[in-house]
Amino acid sequence: MSQNLVISIDAMGGDHGPSVIVPGVAVAAGRLPGVRFLLHGDETALNAELARCPAARAVSEVRHSDRAIAMDEKPAQALRRGKGTSLWNAVEAIREGEASAAVSAGNTGALMAISKLILRMSANMERPAIVASWPTMRGVSAVLDVGANVESDADQLVEFAIMGAAFHHAVHGSDKPTVGILNVGSEDQKGHDEVREAHAMLKDMDLDLDYQGFVEGTDIAKGTVDVVVTDGFTGNVALKTAEGLARFFSNEIKSTFMSGPLAMAGALLASGALKKMRHRLDPGRVNGGPLLGLNGIVVKSHGGADAQSFASAIRVAVDLARSDFSAEIERNLQRLTAAKEKCETVQPEGGAAE
Amino acid sequence: MSQNLVISIDAMGGDHGPSVIVPGVAVAAGRLPGVRFLLHGDETALNAELARCPAARAVSEVRHSDRAIAMDEKPAQALRRGKGTSLWNAVEAIREGEASAAVSAGNTGALMAISKLILRMSANMERPAIVASWPTMRGVSAVLDVGANVESDADQLVEFAIMGAAFHHAVHGSDKPTVGILNVGSEDQKGHDEVREAHAMLKDMDLDLDYQGFVEGTDIAKGTVDVVVTDGFTGNVALKTAEGLARFFSNEIKSTFMSGPLAMAGALLASGALKKMRHRLDPGRVNGGPLLGLNGIVVKSHGGADAQSFASAIRVAVDLARSDFSAEIERNLQRLTAAKEKCETVQPEGGAAE
Repeated sequence: MSQNLVISIDAMGGDHGPSVIVPGVAVAAGRLPGVRFLLHGDETALNAELARCPAARAVSEVRHSDRAIAMDEKPAQALRRGKGTSLWNAVEAIREGEASAAVSAGNTGALMAISKLILRMSANMERPAIVASWPTMRGVSAVLDVGANVESDADQLVEFAIMGAAFHHAVHGSDKPTVGILNVGSEDQKGHDEVREAHAMLKDMDLDLDYQGFVEGTDIAKGTVDVVVTDGFTGNVALKTAEGLARFFSNEIKSTFMSGPLAMAGALLASGALKKMRHRLDPGRVNGGPLLGLNGIVVKSHGGADAQSFASAIRVAVDLARSDFSAEIERNLQRLTAAKEKCETVQPEGGAAE
Repeated sequence: MSQNLVISIDAMGGDHGPSVIVPGVAVAAGRLPGVRFLLHGDETALNAELARCPAARAVSEVRHSDRAIAMDEKPAQALRRGKGTSLWNAVEAIREGEASAAVSAGNTGALMAISKLILRMSANMERPAIVASWPTMRGVSAVLDVGANVESDADQLVEFAIMGAAFHHAVHGSDKPTVGILNVGSEDQKGHDEVREAHAMLKDMDLDLDYQGFVEGTDIAKGTVDVVVTDGFTGNVALKTAEGLARFFSNEIKSTFMSGPLAMAGALLASGALKKMRHRLDPGRVNGGPLLGLNGIVVKSHGGADAQSFASAIRVAVDLARSDFSAEIERNLQRLTAAKEKCETVQPEGGAAE
């Protein structure tokens, strides 16, 4: 089953384009035997890079695209003039049945808009959600949505729970993922209507996940739950706040160890352990945020990813493609729909308490 | 002017009560000559602690309260049965004109509800906002609201900007504080209606602050602006996410340096520099979040604060009381009201763009 899996790559995306993407494919090729790649982008540039990366050349096929989408292009504009770009073609290869998943380090808004147009949303979902894999004291948690949706109602939050759990199961291997809704406190009456309604729905439903109730910001790094559910505004702010803080810490550690001869000697002695620590906390280690809710697997890599990190995003796409991720979501969405219909035929239970 | 300033203390609040609060007053007394304290709480317990802290005893007067509010008591319940508790009495001393400010490490919800009832809101503000002093690469930024308001409309966000700027000026000494609204991107069209409306209002108004537009989560630790404005839900999640991450880093550093003999030797050599770093990143260093918007100065300390940290919260109260903080807010709120009236007499400029 794992033979001949094909991953479609937007080879022009990201801050560095083919000079990082092609070496990234080479790294992934070494780690993921049996996977082949369709590289979309400028033929000349790609062949030049492939000549330097025989490991990538052996498992890749180049598909020429004349144009690429700029990193700062508006999504609406990208939609209008996107046809024929490397990003568009990378996603279209999924619909054409040529590839099982697509990976792009390109413009996030454009990737979302174009993926939605080409692949359409699965079931009755409205917009894709972006999931972040967040390093924690206990492993890696999935946090979603981290930026696709500025506002999310209770139904969407429940969908995020289902999709996040299926993602965590497929990529991070948890058996029955624990799920929490991000809130400002753990008591039932805390927060706004959307989180309280989603909380009430998840408590009652029989889904393939272990709902644990509300969690707070401090719980994310603790790894209290496998899946942290939140609206895209809060999730985006939380993720970027953490990224900013991680950079601050990293700078502080560096300047601390440069602050005098004793500290420098200490840093030298501890350098191996420090390197390991930085690796453990590195967000790039868990690069690769799938756009969930589409009829197809599309993975967004950080724009600034290096080759190692882009290879991690490819692994996420491969893990999802090889798992029964999509079937699991479908199954749970059917249960959700059934549960809702059942609720509606029974008499209404009354509104939310004030 | 700075002579005989009196600060009212809820000496029973916090996780440790008088055993930390009284030593905290002693530390503050050493740092803040000319300040006197009213200690509200159980007379016997307080006198026992004061006997051990002559520096505190010399500048304190004990006011007996029979009861205290529990840390987990619901705000509504605290309001009903709060009269006569140490927290209530500490706040009431402001209204009675006996003290210029109150400090409590007690139950946040109860402190807000009781302060609002006793002191009332200034001008036409609805609910207090809580401001956090956040260590950044460039100093300390004020982030608000971090939990008092679950939802905030555009008018409230503008009020947060005004109050945050006055706070940063009074406590952190910035001349004309820079202000940004927290959002998921920096472009004008990003985010939901509330942030876009507040953005439009702040761009147009002539206030004692330097409005810089939208900022993102990564900008908080960078210290891009002095004042970060956000609704209480997002602010609370961002703050707690950062606190969780800070603890995670701190644990990682410790376990990294215990990971082998070389690393341990390195840690020993670098211990002075590491201690300095931890101090710099310690959220307790900037403990003390005032409840803004009240007719009076009430400062919330972390419940788990130690004596040093409680003394920092006292310093915040003293700095605010000695500055023209309240007058500055009043002045800016008048300008805000005037600007709004002017807007309403001119023809409406049309709704928000889609």
